[in-house]
Amino acid sequence: MIVIMNHRATPEQIQTVINHVESLGYRVHRSDGTERTILGIIGDERPLDTENLEAFEGVERVVRVLHPFKLASREFHPENSVVRVNGIEIGGDQLVLMAGPCSVESREQLFETAAAVKEAGAHILRGGAFKPRTSPYAFQGLGLKGLELLREAREKFHLPIVTEVLAPQDVSLVAQYADILQIGARNMQNFALLRAVGEVQKPVLLKRGMMATIEEWLMAAEYILAQGNSRVILCERGIRTFETATRNTFDINAIPLIKQLSHLPVIADPSHGTGRWDLVIPVSRAAIAAGADGLIIEVHPHPEQALSDGAQSLRPDRFASLVEETRRLAEVLGRRL
Amino acid sequence: MIVIMNHRATPEQIQTVINHVESLGYRVHRSDGTERTILGIIGDERPLDTENLEAFEGVERVVRVLHPFKLASREFHPENSVVRVNGIEIGGDQLVLMAGPCSVESREQLFETAAAVKEAGAHILRGGAFKPRTSPYAFQGLGLKGLELLREAREKFHLPIVTEVLAPQDVSLVAQYADILQIGARNMQNFALLRAVGEVQKPVLLKRGMMATIEEWLMAAEYILAQGNSRVILCERGIRTFETATRNTFDINAIPLIKQLSHLPVIADPSHGTGRWDLVIPVSRAAIAAGADGLIIEVHPHPEQALSDGAQSLRPDRFASLVEETRRLAEVLGRRL
Amino acid sequence: MIVIMNHRATPEQIQTVINHVESLGYRVHRSDGTERTILGIIGDERPLDTENLEAFEGVERVVRVLHPFKLASREFHPENSVVRVNGIEIGGDQLVLMAGPCSVESREQLFETAAAVKEAGAHILRGGAFKPRTSPYAFQGLGLKGLELLREAREKFHLPIVTEVLAPQDVSLVAQYADILQIGARNMQNFALLRAVGEVQKPVLLKRGMMATIEEWLMAAEYILAQGNSRVILCERGIRTFETATRNTFDINAIPLIKQLSHLPVIADPSHGTGRWDLVIPVSRAAIAAGADGLIIEVHPHPEQALSDGAQSLRPDRFASLVEETRRLAEVLGRRL
Amino acid sequence: MIVIMNHRATPEQIQTVINHVESLGYRVHRSDGTERTILGIIGDERPLDTENLEAFEGVERVVRVLHPFKLASREFHPENSVVRVNGIEIGGDQLVLMAGPCSVESREQLFETAAAVKEAGAHILRGGAFKPRTSPYAFQGLGLKGLELLREAREKFHLPIVTEVLAPQDVSLVAQYADILQIGARNMQNFALLRAVGEVQKPVLLKRGMMATIEEWLMAAEYILAQGNSRVILCERGIRTFETATRNTFDINAIPLIKQLSHLPVIADPSHGTGRWDLVIPVSRAAIAAGADGLIIEVHPHPEQALSDGAQSLRPDRFASLVEETRRLAEVLGRRL
Repeated sequence: MIVIMNHRATPEQIQTVINHVESLGYRVHRSDGTERTILGIIGDERPLDTENLEAFEGVERVVRVLHPFKLASREFHPENSVVRVNGIEIGGDQLVLMAGPCSVESREQLFETAAAVKEAGAHILRGGAFKPRTSPYAFQGLGLKGLELLREAREKFHLPIVTEVLAPQDVSLVAQYADILQIGARNMQNFALLRAVGEVQKPVLLKRGMMATIEEWLMAAEYILAQGNSRVILCERGIRTFETATRNTFDINAIPLIKQLSHLPVIADPSHGTGRWDLVIPVSRAAIAAGADGLIIEVHPHPEQALSDGAQSLRPDRFASLVEETRRLAEVLGRRL
Repeated sequence: MIVIMNHRATPEQIQTVINHVESLGYRVHRSDGTERTILGIIGDERPLDTENLEAFEGVERVVRVLHPFKLASREFHPENSVVRVNGIEIGGDQLVLMAGPCSVESREQLFETAAAVKEAGAHILRGGAFKPRTSPYAFQGLGLKGLELLREAREKFHLPIVTEVLAPQDVSLVAQYADILQIGARNMQNFALLRAVGEVQKPVLLKRGMMATIEEWLMAAEYILAQGNSRVILCERGIRTFETATRNTFDINAIPLIKQLSHLPVIADPSHGTGRWDLVIPVSRAAIAAGADGLIIEVHPHPEQALSDGAQSLRPDRFASLVEETRRLAEVLGRRL
Repeated sequence: MIVIMNHRATPEQIQTVINHVESLGYRVHRSDGTERTILGIIGDERPLDTENLEAFEGVERVVRVLHPFKLASREFHPENSVVRVNGIEIGGDQLVLMAGPCSVESREQLFETAAAVKEAGAHILRGGAFKPRTSPYAFQGLGLKGLELLREAREKFHLPIVTEVLAPQDVSLVAQYADILQIGARNMQNFALLRAVGEVQKPVLLKRGMMATIEEWLMAAEYILAQGNSRVILCERGIRTFETATRNTFDINAIPLIKQLSHLPVIADPSHGTGRWDLVIPVSRAAIAAGADGLIIEVHPHPEQALSDGAQSLRPDRFASLVEETRRLAEVLGRRL
Repeated sequence: MIVIMNHRATPEQIQTVINHVESLGYRVHRSDGTERTILGIIGDERPLDTENLEAFEGVERVVRVLHPFKLASREFHPENSVVRVNGIEIGGDQLVLMAGPCSVESREQLFETAAAVKEAGAHILRGGAFKPRTSPYAFQGLGLKGLELLREAREKFHLPIVTEVLAPQDVSLVAQYADILQIGARNMQNFALLRAVGEVQKPVLLKRGMMATIEEWLMAAEYILAQGNSRVILCERGIRTFETATRNTFDINAIPLIKQLSHLPVIADPSHGTGRWDLVIPVSRAAIAAGADGLIIEVHPHPEQALSDGAQSLRPDRFASLVEETRRLAEVLGRRL
């Protein structure tokens, strides 16, 4: 960590900061420049708080040298992590396809979708039983009934299930039904929930918050890892920007950057990343080309009857085209479907 | 709600949308323009989902006519709501000052701060016992011990308490100690938590999410109101933008806009809204001048020793200056402190 | 255009708006809903100004039905536009590669780079003679001397030139040297400059402004097209967001969306779109996979000695790898290099 | 400037960077931490380019210690700059009010507005003759005819004129009519134009770009100052964010922050900062309370007939109320109108 003193900082102010930092067990490397004095703090800076040091008189700015995450970092875990779910490897050579409806609405709807995505080549079935909705008046999901339908579909179609959990008190229940627990974008910094899924031995699909920096996202992963659950799968699903022509801006840069910074697998969600079904296929191709380990796609047999996210759901035949395109891309990229 | 068909929409596609909307009990008003057909949906559109309609073939775009919130709206509740907390009126003529440390750290720190802010003129004591922290390695608050210290300070200094609650399962506990339950910015769309505080008969201070539009913020309030708890206080605390010179961008426009759209009181948090103690006083003045009903300010006797948010905490003497400036402004604005 | 009256609008206010719109030669379609009156304006709305109508008493909001651009729109020009530059077709089946240094620094630097990118397979040479720099103290380009070096390189390596023009008064000069005139991101809404390049019969590479919506970008193209210059090539180069880990956020969604909305070719600039050379190759692949018509890449033989943009410049060997990867992708995507 | 080497940097890579920096005449202060080596560069870093250093192998990140602006900086010019325009002091104790129509539309419109704002207490008349418009089909201003009307109004009402200049070749013409040259938000980084107004001895009102950081804004001022024109007035007019309920987000934090970082006067433009006339008065009060040196306000006698910006223009009577409110605020804040 580097402390930049301001140009009016007195010798006493500089010394006060040095004494404080040394009292915490760090060494300080002082460098007097022509216009500023700079203090380099030697030692593991991660437990230090920049805001704390910025509160000292005479301090202009504090700059971190290290990323604040450790367990999530490739620096401390150079090899790719591979998360295994019922024999499927996420983060290895194989590209993994998760697909299904936004919400579980009925047995018919779920089974029709599951059959179609299985047939097309999906590996994992997605579907929401507990739905976070902007409006309290919107459909909030079938809850337990939805979980039971997911279990039925799991058995019938031999597809592992990924489904969202919204509250810490629901984690143990959802974990009985799900193969992967999903943390939604709005809950990426719901730390009580992160801790709860960290205590359970289930893989976690951690969606990026729509206004979360990549560093904050990896710190959210760190919360789960620090509880002892090492099976975290990241999911880029678009960020919020000034552009309104699409629901979100899919951050394609994040895919290769995450691969540099972290060993965790990263999955792309172009359904939320674009908000428009007619952009899902090209942005899926892009995510795979950028190095994503797989896709999670909203599919609905009748999007115009969907109780949520109809505008961004693919019909089964379009999902099948997407799978074919992904297969051809995989070969060129040295991966496989 | 208005459905704009695209320029290639066929008569059949248009009719399919009309039939669907009518089947839901609405009337449709069709208007054939020179380049597009437009369908006006007559009736209360709030339960309708725009995404659903956008999934129909031939639909280009769906536009809401009404705001999606109702209970939070000034249209349905033209008079200002006044929230009473132990004899203090929030949302009336009086400006309300909430102040205290970011985190409760110790009895000494809390009591020293409480004494100082009481002396300066604060009405309500703030202080965090459960702290949402970006890093799992940072101080997470004293928890129950912090709540007990807050209760002691409440009795000793005759100051009502506002403190954050992080998880649904903690609501009933925190409600035993707090006079106002705070929902933090990161939890603004933690719908399970919103429902939980909606079921308790305590005022709720609802911070705006750093990524939340004003409409989403009012929809979060709607969640609480819809559970039967009408005592919601909004708190603008800055939004995330591309500007990095400040921690957040305080959205001053939001203050008068909320007053137009809603009847709920709105409080300003310039500590988080700027992230720098040296901007807190001018931005506090601005918020009051724009029509805020009060302020919530982080105060710490020794910011450089704070376990969190030191860089944005005021020392007690500066807080006292802020109170004086607010008092003078209040008079000019037809309010009082 | 649709005018939504507010819930307190009086019959007189509604009639005043209707009279005004009719006086401009439009028909009005009135629809009285349960909570609002809505006025549909029938006729070509493009010349109308929403702000004007929003200034009438009783108006709540005005919504456009049509996109405001016309010449740039696919609706009015369904076929892809192909821009021909010295026998190279931009916007056709072939992917086009533009490459070269950020700035022309010297004959040696330019020729070394040109030889390398030609050898690797680039079609067009990029290089800046007039440089827009954030700091007045930074290298501002070689100016006329740079243009002359570009002309030499053009002849020697048989590569057409794309180079930036910064001011209207320089357009005719730069047009004598360049095969394609580049409008930089900071000048996307420099309307005097847009008009000036619209009057010249040279292709224009129009970069998206870092805070421009897709609609504004197409309106900037419309400025050029409306002057009679139909050879506009769009260039996505990333937008500014809250994310600071990358210099910009490359908006991958924009690529397929532009292809829907417009007939103009679109080129990707992953050098600026990421700001980091180590992300350029994966994001290049992504852009091609999403449907871009080509790439523009900063290449420098010694990035650490570059006078600008060193951090995002590829070395020639890495550029050669990028070309190879693009070639393999092209085949799978039904295109060719 | 501080160079942070990555954790895999070799001794040779570190030495190469040191040699390079020393060859430019700087001293290097090396600090070997537990996980990273850090190089502090001693000397005036302003001419150095961070991107250049980031291109060296083994470099992880480069951090500036100093702000890149110098002439605009309060550090080098501790006293407030006061810009004098026909006896009016901008940046002193007095608050300055600039008001008038968005565009000059006709003699009647301009004179009616000028008479009203003069009567209400405005000091300077604003009005656009050359208008930057998003659409090539929108009204582009009266041009020279507009300048002549402004000159007439100037003489008749004894009000200095502020008006926008769009292109370098127009600067000398506009300077013959205007007392203050305005650089619009879209041209804040039109460096050719900045240089042109820097060469003229007229005050310049420099609007913040809607996508510009505060640092970039001060660098744009630096361009003008570096040409020898010291009479720069900054104007905060809102930035672009994800929030769509207002046209822009007025950055209230910027007002006091600019006052810390710079000696230049800063004026607030709440008309563009909000885009809605019904928010202009409260946000004007806020800007003054935060420390702005004055306001620039769009006023139109008949906003619904305005050829531009009708929705954000105040009627004269509302402007008169604004003046009164500002007067009362000024007294409390130790300033005067």
